[in-house]
Amino acid sequence: MEILKVIKIGGNLINNSTSLETFIKHFARIEGPKILVHGGGSLATKMAEKMKIDVKIVGGRRVTDEQTLDVITMVYAGKINKKLVATLQSNGCNAIGFCGADGNAIVSEKRPVKQIDYGFVGDVVKVNTALLGLLIKHHVTPVFSAVTHDGNGELLNTNADTVAAELAIAFAKNFQTELYYCFEKKGVLLDVTDEHSVVENINQKKYDAFVENNVIADGMLPKLNNCFYAVHQKVQKVCIGNTDMLYNEHAKFTKIQAT
Amino acid sequence: MEILKVIKIGGNLINNSTSLETFIKHFARIEGPKILVHGGGSLATKMAEKMKIDVKIVGGRRVTDEQTLDVITMVYAGKINKKLVATLQSNGCNAIGFCGADGNAIVSEKRPVKQIDYGFVGDVVKVNTALLGLLIKHHVTPVFSAVTHDGNGELLNTNADTVAAELAIAFAKNFQTELYYCFEKKGVLLDVTDEHSVVENINQKKYDAFVENNVIADGMLPKLNNCFYAVHQKVQKVCIGNTDMLYNEHAKFTKIQAT
Repeated sequence: MEILKVIKIGGNLINNSTSLETFIKHFARIEGPKILVHGGGSLATKMAEKMKIDVKIVGGRRVTDEQTLDVITMVYAGKINKKLVATLQSNGCNAIGFCGADGNAIVSEKRPVKQIDYGFVGDVVKVNTALLGLLIKHHVTPVFSAVTHDGNGELLNTNADTVAAELAIAFAKNFQTELYYCFEKKGVLLDVTDEHSVVENINQKKYDAFVENNVIADGMLPKLNNCFYAVHQKVQKVCIGNTDMLYNEHAKFTKIQAT
Repeated sequence: MEILKVIKIGGNLINNSTSLETFIKHFARIEGPKILVHGGGSLATKMAEKMKIDVKIVGGRRVTDEQTLDVITMVYAGKINKKLVATLQSNGCNAIGFCGADGNAIVSEKRPVKQIDYGFVGDVVKVNTALLGLLIKHHVTPVFSAVTHDGNGELLNTNADTVAAELAIAFAKNFQTELYYCFEKKGVLLDVTDEHSVVENINQKKYDAFVENNVIADGMLPKLNNCFYAVHQKVQKVCIGNTDMLYNEHAKFTKIQAT
């Protein structure tokens, strides 16, 4: 089976135009089918501030009200997504920007209100691969912002790591999928203050032990949960590290393994 | 040859959510290949005001500086485009949002600086129909915001009427293309105060006479220039009127004819 790479880039990379440009140059050169998924970085927060929209936090979690959803749609699916696509095109990569509504690619459902009403936040229920697959076959690179839709006309804010995982899982039927989470660290660190303490392989058992012993930093938990979710759903290769892992064969990073 | 309808909707329709929803319902039901092109309405201006970005006017023309381009990309290619796509999806129309950078669909060049520097404004130089044609063949409806790119990584603000005309012209090789400009009036009016004074047919000769005698309102001139440009470039049918012309067989509107 052909390899499909799903590569997720986060806020820190998007905030830094020099690193982003270097990444785009390298990403454009990656051969074979690929999908880029991007987060939003601090731009949405800055925009909300400029527009005097209050950030609502309930129980430590950000709530997406209607105005915030607008900002997210504008910044993620508009400004960042289109700039990424234009830059990829200038590097010879034929990209098309997507949110989940485009081509009905990613359908989600509004998170039910329990203790907390997260607002316009969607949990993925279905990825439609047919049209995306057709585009990939024609050497097009889909570029996803983490905005999805519920099929009833509502756009929903969705976690970008989850979008990447769900895309990799959905394509695992037709491709040997590889999922790369790029962030600012080299990978899972045994000691968060030591960049050299990269754990090269981590399986569910080791992860559980790490969690029990508080070895893993809080911010890493949802990210790693997505990694294990993907690896248990037949994604062939799941890696987490900085962008070096994509194009430097000597780079250290963390590989997630089921067992 | 199969018919392809290129339908352009403008600001007034986009600003009115009830009319817009009615339009979308009808548009979704139009059979056969179709492309939607949308303007931005007053939302971009409102957003610029909220963000305290001054609107720059030079020689009576709005100038697109970097901040304004950002707002246009966010509002047109983000908020409006994605909401339109989500609403079309909920009406059973498989739409994909496009700006000119997506799939390298519309390449433009930055307008050269002569007396006026218009800033980040692009004039269309090429429409790439291959990928769009593939999508249309697969019953996908492209939805275009009027943001294009120069192929070197720069997004450019482009006139939405022109985008619609260029799309219709480019597809005239493969389809019998029909171009519909929807706006708030029933068509070209002999008397701007009388909605019943619709001119049903207008050819170049008649138009030239109208212009000479100041019969045509100023705002209509660029719109009609686009109409004649398209009709002289082998677009089979060019119409201007309100959205009724699309789905009411008794509607009056103006049909543009070459001779």
